[in-house]
Amino acid sequence: MSMFITFEGPEGSGKSTVMQAVAPRLERPLITTREPGGIRISEAIRDLLLSDDYSMDARTEALLFAASRRQHLVEKVQPALDAGQIVLCDRFIDSSLAYQGYARGIGVEEIMSVNQFAIENYMPDLTLYLKVPPEIGLARIMDNQRETNRLDNESLAFHQRVYDGYNDLADTYERIVTIDATRPIDEVIEDAYQVIIKKLG
Amino acid sequence: MSMFITFEGPEGSGKSTVMQAVAPRLERPLITTREPGGIRISEAIRDLLLSDDYSMDARTEALLFAASRRQHLVEKVQPALDAGQIVLCDRFIDSSLAYQGYARGIGVEEIMSVNQFAIENYMPDLTLYLKVPPEIGLARIMDNQRETNRLDNESLAFHQRVYDGYNDLADTYERIVTIDATRPIDEVIEDAYQVIIKKLG
Repeated sequence: MSMFITFEGPEGSGKSTVMQAVAPRLERPLITTREPGGIRISEAIRDLLLSDDYSMDARTEALLFAASRRQHLVEKVQPALDAGQIVLCDRFIDSSLAYQGYARGIGVEEIMSVNQFAIENYMPDLTLYLKVPPEIGLARIMDNQRETNRLDNESLAFHQRVYDGYNDLADTYERIVTIDATRPIDEVIEDAYQVIIKKLG
Repeated sequence: MSMFITFEGPEGSGKSTVMQAVAPRLERPLITTREPGGIRISEAIRDLLLSDDYSMDARTEALLFAASRRQHLVEKVQPALDAGQIVLCDRFIDSSLAYQGYARGIGVEEIMSVNQFAIENYMPDLTLYLKVPPEIGLARIMDNQRETNRLDNESLAFHQRVYDGYNDLADTYERIVTIDATRPIDEVIEDAYQVIIKKLG
């Protein structure tokens, strides 16, 4: 049975780690992916988005994310779903709603509209929101000495708006399940696993 | 008095030639431009759009055009209009409506919605549609031995749909004035000049 499951949350919430830990435990045909996911034009768009070399309006940014999302969906997500697989995807439409809709102030309705053009009927069946306040998430990134990019380097106020945005989305959409990601990673993984297993029925 | 005037039509309709010939005759503060118009990120997006190196869905293409349009608008068109200048622009929203909305079959409403996200309130005040059937337009391109790109190389049926689309748009929107561009270029330029002068009042 195909199912489209996305992992969302601010930087340092542990999305990738949790997704990769849960995947083998599901013991079903699945793929794990994240935008741009090796799709050539999406990789090229990502280079533009993360570069400091270009001036870029918030709406330009939103349209580029939507373009990258579209091609990744068409080339990778959609074929896997059509083949009856489970797709686990690190970030999807809710990232644009939180980052561009809330934090950049464009508004959720407008970002939703552009993204629905991009994804058509492929909304996630289930979204795991790994909730962690920005101070904790950002501190984790710093500790891991992970290379930061243009979006990581935004102000704390920006990341606070991202956080508030995610919380709002989780209150709005039934498909979004919130998991407290301030706890030890093993507990977060276990919770994520249980939520998915329950949904798979 | 600022005014936003766009030139539209299929390949080989003479848009650029007419626009450049009309501009000095208007004797007013103005700029002439075309997307990507020297805007760095728009140039980079254009390289993606015209390259044969990437596979690209029609909706991905539409989102990339909208992103490029947005940044060109913000950096070049909007400042000129805000400074009270006339802006003459070779291609704008109607190109996306004709090429992606009609010819690619995505539909006008959806392309309009994405482009309104990109341009907000900056719709053209006047649009000159240089009408020329695809056989004639394409023959002109071949004769000029102009370098062709990914969109030029589409089938004749595609260019016929572009043409039909433009005609439909001209019937729909009052801001669009149709000029018969099969005639000698001097007559087309004279017509375009008269239409603009009348609108300027």
